[in-house]
Amino acid sequence: MDYTQEEKEYFMREALREAGKSLDKEEIPIGCVIVKDGQIIGRGHNAREELNQAIMHAEVMAIQEANRLEGNWRLLDTTLFVTIEPCVMCSGAIGLARIPQVIYGAANQKFGAAGSLYNILTDSRLNHRVTVETGILEDECAAIMQDFFRQRREKQKMAKQMDDADHS
Amino acid sequence: MDYTQEEKEYFMREALREAGKSLDKEEIPIGCVIVKDGQIIGRGHNAREELNQAIMHAEVMAIQEANRLEGNWRLLDTTLFVTIEPCVMCSGAIGLARIPQVIYGAANQKFGAAGSLYNILTDSRLNHRVTVETGILEDECAAIMQDFFRQRREKQKMAKQMDDADHS
Repeated sequence: MDYTQEEKEYFMREALREAGKSLDKEEIPIGCVIVKDGQIIGRGHNAREELNQAIMHAEVMAIQEANRLEGNWRLLDTTLFVTIEPCVMCSGAIGLARIPQVIYGAANQKFGAAGSLYNILTDSRLNHRVTVETGILEDECAAIMQDFFRQRREKQKMAKQMDDADHS
Repeated sequence: MDYTQEEKEYFMREALREAGKSLDKEEIPIGCVIVKDGQIIGRGHNAREELNQAIMHAEVMAIQEANRLEGNWRLLDTTLFVTIEPCVMCSGAIGLARIPQVIYGAANQKFGAAGSLYNILTDSRLNHRVTVETGILEDECAAIMQDFFRQRREKQKMAKQMDDADHS
């Protein structure tokens, strides 16, 4: 799974398209694709609020789809592209699905478990180790998140001002 | 959610019943129930092989069911009973679902992330902390796992002997 820089950017753009689906639903915009032999076999986007499912992160949705398509819980010889560093749950899920390679766009200093808070994917005590690469389209992957949270803060501020005005 | 010892054992027996469903399908026997106000709102058992889904651990199945029943991804004021210490993925999922209390039967020295390899549930850096109790019906919870793995080793040994005999 030695993809060229151009190929990596192509698949990360596909993950960013998935993140756009979250954004359209006012969900935290994170997207993911799983690639095997140059073909996308699983797509996912964060849909926790829409589906009211705590586990419905981009990576979990993509793993479920790839498991269905392959008819196999093991996703050997695949690469998972995700716009933001995986959390603890998703890092655990990546290991359980035996995915050997993860490429993420931007780090998540608060909740990331693939280098920031934990190094789940490279922990030699677990029975599956993953190679991790980062920095592909990092600025775009980070920007879509920053824009989302800035807009959410502005909306909350505006709602509070209107609420204060109603009660003044 | 202050359950008596008798109540805790009752719910852990329900989790063991769930583990029995995995055993019937020759899956690693781990079971889970999620309880709110003394009522079970989610049940789950490990079904990875049957469903060909890497994420289909007992806890994840129970969280999905409870989320559907509650119509909410947040499982506030609930207690999760599971026969074996949760793995990394499930510990992450428990935090994401905002479950405040986890009671598990027996530790998992190899893959446990609620005290053995990691302390995900009590990590103050994550934005949700969980109280963890262990040792409820510990012997039964451990025994069903030990029996499963012993029988699997015996079957594998017998299959190898028959295979060797065929090729001798």
